[in-house]
Amino acid sequence: MSLNSFGHLFRVTTWGESHGPALGATLDGCPPGVPVEAAALQHWLDRRKPGQSRFVTQRKEPDAVEILSGVFDGQSTGTPIQLMIRNTDQRSKDYGDIVEKFRPGHADITYWQKYGIRDYRGGGRSSARETAARVAAGGVARAALGVLTPEVEIIGYMVQVGPHGIARARFDRDEIGRNPFWSPDAQAAETWGDYLDGLRKAGDSVGAVVEVTARNVPAGLGAPVYGKLDTDLAAAMMSINAVKAVEIGEGMAAATLTGSQNADEIFMGPQGPVYASNHAGGILGGISTGQDIVVRFAVKPTSSILTPRQTITRSGEEVQIITRGRHDPCVGIRAVPVAEAMMACVLLDHVLLHRGQVGGNRGRIG
Amino acid sequence: MSLNSFGHLFRVTTWGESHGPALGATLDGCPPGVPVEAAALQHWLDRRKPGQSRFVTQRKEPDAVEILSGVFDGQSTGTPIQLMIRNTDQRSKDYGDIVEKFRPGHADITYWQKYGIRDYRGGGRSSARETAARVAAGGVARAALGVLTPEVEIIGYMVQVGPHGIARARFDRDEIGRNPFWSPDAQAAETWGDYLDGLRKAGDSVGAVVEVTARNVPAGLGAPVYGKLDTDLAAAMMSINAVKAVEIGEGMAAATLTGSQNADEIFMGPQGPVYASNHAGGILGGISTGQDIVVRFAVKPTSSILTPRQTITRSGEEVQIITRGRHDPCVGIRAVPVAEAMMACVLLDHVLLHRGQVGGNRGRIG
Amino acid sequence: MSLNSFGHLFRVTTWGESHGPALGATLDGCPPGVPVEAAALQHWLDRRKPGQSRFVTQRKEPDAVEILSGVFDGQSTGTPIQLMIRNTDQRSKDYGDIVEKFRPGHADITYWQKYGIRDYRGGGRSSARETAARVAAGGVARAALGVLTPEVEIIGYMVQVGPHGIARARFDRDEIGRNPFWSPDAQAAETWGDYLDGLRKAGDSVGAVVEVTARNVPAGLGAPVYGKLDTDLAAAMMSINAVKAVEIGEGMAAATLTGSQNADEIFMGPQGPVYASNHAGGILGGISTGQDIVVRFAVKPTSSILTPRQTITRSGEEVQIITRGRHDPCVGIRAVPVAEAMMACVLLDHVLLHRGQVGGNRGRIG
Amino acid sequence: MSLNSFGHLFRVTTWGESHGPALGATLDGCPPGVPVEAAALQHWLDRRKPGQSRFVTQRKEPDAVEILSGVFDGQSTGTPIQLMIRNTDQRSKDYGDIVEKFRPGHADITYWQKYGIRDYRGGGRSSARETAARVAAGGVARAALGVLTPEVEIIGYMVQVGPHGIARARFDRDEIGRNPFWSPDAQAAETWGDYLDGLRKAGDSVGAVVEVTARNVPAGLGAPVYGKLDTDLAAAMMSINAVKAVEIGEGMAAATLTGSQNADEIFMGPQGPVYASNHAGGILGGISTGQDIVVRFAVKPTSSILTPRQTITRSGEEVQIITRGRHDPCVGIRAVPVAEAMMACVLLDHVLLHRGQVGGNRGRIG
Repeated sequence: MSLNSFGHLFRVTTWGESHGPALGATLDGCPPGVPVEAAALQHWLDRRKPGQSRFVTQRKEPDAVEILSGVFDGQSTGTPIQLMIRNTDQRSKDYGDIVEKFRPGHADITYWQKYGIRDYRGGGRSSARETAARVAAGGVARAALGVLTPEVEIIGYMVQVGPHGIARARFDRDEIGRNPFWSPDAQAAETWGDYLDGLRKAGDSVGAVVEVTARNVPAGLGAPVYGKLDTDLAAAMMSINAVKAVEIGEGMAAATLTGSQNADEIFMGPQGPVYASNHAGGILGGISTGQDIVVRFAVKPTSSILTPRQTITRSGEEVQIITRGRHDPCVGIRAVPVAEAMMACVLLDHVLLHRGQVGGNRGRIG
Repeated sequence: MSLNSFGHLFRVTTWGESHGPALGATLDGCPPGVPVEAAALQHWLDRRKPGQSRFVTQRKEPDAVEILSGVFDGQSTGTPIQLMIRNTDQRSKDYGDIVEKFRPGHADITYWQKYGIRDYRGGGRSSARETAARVAAGGVARAALGVLTPEVEIIGYMVQVGPHGIARARFDRDEIGRNPFWSPDAQAAETWGDYLDGLRKAGDSVGAVVEVTARNVPAGLGAPVYGKLDTDLAAAMMSINAVKAVEIGEGMAAATLTGSQNADEIFMGPQGPVYASNHAGGILGGISTGQDIVVRFAVKPTSSILTPRQTITRSGEEVQIITRGRHDPCVGIRAVPVAEAMMACVLLDHVLLHRGQVGGNRGRIG
Repeated sequence: MSLNSFGHLFRVTTWGESHGPALGATLDGCPPGVPVEAAALQHWLDRRKPGQSRFVTQRKEPDAVEILSGVFDGQSTGTPIQLMIRNTDQRSKDYGDIVEKFRPGHADITYWQKYGIRDYRGGGRSSARETAARVAAGGVARAALGVLTPEVEIIGYMVQVGPHGIARARFDRDEIGRNPFWSPDAQAAETWGDYLDGLRKAGDSVGAVVEVTARNVPAGLGAPVYGKLDTDLAAAMMSINAVKAVEIGEGMAAATLTGSQNADEIFMGPQGPVYASNHAGGILGGISTGQDIVVRFAVKPTSSILTPRQTITRSGEEVQIITRGRHDPCVGIRAVPVAEAMMACVLLDHVLLHRGQVGGNRGRIG
Repeated sequence: MSLNSFGHLFRVTTWGESHGPALGATLDGCPPGVPVEAAALQHWLDRRKPGQSRFVTQRKEPDAVEILSGVFDGQSTGTPIQLMIRNTDQRSKDYGDIVEKFRPGHADITYWQKYGIRDYRGGGRSSARETAARVAAGGVARAALGVLTPEVEIIGYMVQVGPHGIARARFDRDEIGRNPFWSPDAQAAETWGDYLDGLRKAGDSVGAVVEVTARNVPAGLGAPVYGKLDTDLAAAMMSINAVKAVEIGEGMAAATLTGSQNADEIFMGPQGPVYASNHAGGILGGISTGQDIVVRFAVKPTSSILTPRQTITRSGEEVQIITRGRHDPCVGIRAVPVAEAMMACVLLDHVLLHRGQVGGNRGRIG
């Protein structure tokens, strides 16, 4: 029972502080025979890397991943894979103000109250830098899925920044990689650009909504009742820094639907069941149906803004605080590759769990 | 690693099918010396019981809980507590239609595909009847919290039925127990009554949004990064039948807030930190702040409606299906006591985890 | 993380006190499609039942097992299986002496110190009665192994009672079921009979050594480094009441062997590797080789004897204690069916784990 | 559920292959505020280091440990602590013979069969080098115990080499650190020296028995039934390379004792219960009594000897094999620091578990 680990058979433990010597991930349970190489993992990390546009934090980290174990002759051995990322750019002087002060909206105060000690540099363990380790782990998970379920595709993108959502009718998958926002809607990308420029100059920030879809996932994944696929996905996304809500399929909107509107009717196709719609988001009773798995989550705005805020110090003194240094007008942007990584890890875990528990789908239809 | 269990130190395993001999919960890790008696647990179960109003399923189950172990002279011993509820009203003839057919929106098809065998009576293990076991477990958790953190209060209520939400300005805690909907807004309760009467007559159903608040929770609960309090709460609520989204604090709305709007500023009060607002929902960095913990989730409408739906049979034949028998126009109503039970279980778990990991809050302020 | 559970994918939680209403086992992860029936489980329980000869405790319990969930149409569904055994013969007046006194060699004092409350009747949760639940669980595990690895055989037997060991040269498998001691050596059975008659009359008891062998176990089972097959077997056997040592293969004797004596040389047979000897007990590096898995453990003598012993009371008063009532001259005898049950549970767990983690052996030889 | 992790609240995951870039341990759950420094951990590693006498392997590894996370200002933060040890001396040409051949008595064949890929250099993950990570973890555990239970002492020593045991009457604690064998009996150390010199020259090896004692352990540690202290200790020691048996207290000898001989009578002392003897090895019903916890285990002889042995290759060809290069005449010697480390980790885990589950001993005596 590690509280710094997630997963059942494919179990990932992350470690490391924002300004410590390094951070990384211990992967236990990657099946053997999966091609694993640092360059492939680096690709995924580079997509997440700070400093890619003026809209994300300007911390220059190479985020170079090193594989320390579990791989031999370019393949996983079935033994633990240790991934390490050294920290290099640790401009700690930016954080001098927070040795004594608790930044509102951050974990500073709760970490202090709970542990009685906190690495205040860059938020320590509570920093979003921890997600770099997740993305590295996600790279390995993707490689394993590539062997076990090669048809599975995982696509993450932004659907809303502040009050501005995309238009689903303009959804273009190829657009996602062409703008700094992972937006599938070119028009929305432009709107967001102007909007965030304004916020950045004002020293403010805003929240966002990220969506990640998994396609061609086989039916049968998920372990009811408490290892349901949607339960594990909800936990995975909720564990990402700054996330305040998770939705599956219709999400909150399901509350407004009637039964006659919501149920996805079933027909028979040449290769098995075919669904007329996907309000369920690809999961029924906690088990995948074979339809697209659609997960969405809301990221709150970063509280590290340039407006002075009221707070207290460790000695109980009321003060103001301005967090200088590097800031994200919209931390949600960086969460897109993280969402994909978590989806990959959870799916791999459930592929292994399914074959362990049941040995493969047992029920024929047709 | 039980996929039918949740919790870390206070670990609950539920078992049982809708129409099997019994269902129940195995509770492992209840601290010793907690007063546990069947009558107290029965109180919580009766609040959930079917047949209480014309708006919830008319299945007549006494839901009588029996304590089979772990209690001696009216107190928990620290050994596993087995709670059992015998099933008595199992009108299986209501379900004759679904031996071969898969009800759209239900887990019938996925359970069949995965396991190759399913107890089709009443949905078997996928039935919401499983939540009776959770409510019984929640009764024990409440008793333990009553010893360890007696000031904690857990209150669940409905905030939306279909498109109709409550007015927060009319929130009256005492109203919750006075209407059949757990509504804190008397006016909304009337609106919902008329709305659901119409749906029930039409043989349709609708979704809902449930909110559960925990008050006077000590700061410091939660085990980052993957045992965060909000992560465990999200998983707990998402695991409830028919839930499609979970929110903490502002939830999805956090996406639209700016940093200057969202951060809860901190002041110093006579007994410690005081927050000017609670956009965070009582949790920062995955650890409780001492503020109200606010969790919300959306329940989709039941798919067991009287309108004929398209589906297929096990042999792949396309047919129509009408699910006769007992139906809920709004299953979300029954989820309110379940939400409270899950909140109690997760909080107790984290109280124990916190004292085990850290021994109690270590950081002084002031 | 349940401390009252064992296993990874096939996870068993036992519950129940010696004199409580019932005891049982919650089985999570039995694969679907396994034939499970109460009569078959009853067979295994009857082999363990008290009252079978003058050498085991005279408590008359029918030990009737009831299946409460997880089985439909005679087959496991993949959902949790709840097995319950009602307690009927609870001659509590036999234990009146120990409300205040701690029986030396028993868990009375440690349970009191730790929990501050203990069900003193019959030892409560610390009673060997708990092993009835294990045997029931073992019955299900055997049924599952019968489907997945039908060639596997599990045979338990006694190899030593007090100072008297069997002669390996006289080992006769058919003899095991013909005497009250599970002895594979008829001559030893006679010696033990006389020896234990003497002890029983003297009101004393003695320890024993149990051995359990698993034959035709496929190679490849075991999950290094901390889920090694021998690690899980050691834990399984050590968790049985009164066990003080566990051996694999040569066991303690391995310390006296030289490298040239100990290594099992390997040859090639028609169907794969063949070993010239089995000092390893069927496990290398924590993984099964395909040879017989041989596990042995020592059971200490019961401390419930008729000789007065020095002890103290809860109030710290020094007193003498005689435990009257039902007594075993050799509790080790009852441990034989328990050892078989634990072997079955651990093997099933590893069969599932192996196929989940790796999907089946991947390395060809020849 | 990591199969490369052990522990419940203090959870250690080891990673790394013998000849990979590095090996290490991820420690999750070290309580905050524990002084942790690399120099202190190095002390424990140096005691284990290869190359210290002619009786242990001559591989020259500095085994320099680096702390990569979880420590701030010299104290643990409560976040995961990553310990890394770079491999430097990897004379891989010594192992050229085993690319194709399986060394008898080693895990080569089972790893190949299970995973279909193995890092054959130095035994890969199955190498005893993995124990360096355990010793580093043990160093942190000792530091934590030093804060939480400073009176606890952990002492490991050798009690038997081949057929030669120590004389308990000559037991001298100070002798342990004065000879190359961790022998508490100076005379036995001399006997062992001559004996092992002979074996080393003959290119052979022999097994050994290690004993580790924990003194001043508070009563109440251990979580029945499957998290018993002796169960966790048995698993911990059995997981060490080459271990074939584990004993608690009397161990296998308990089988020969009668009840009147074995029970440890209880008297009342000034500070609580006092036991007349310690056949139990400090554990009753899986819970510590406060007496010395005595654990013993047998290490088999290394199979890497200079005598030619029969084996097969991956292609099924029968061949002979001689393992050249570095060899231990008695690998058991190196296991002594490992046993201490495991004892420390398990004890710390149970200290945390106890305070989490129960909050401290609840039952008064006197």
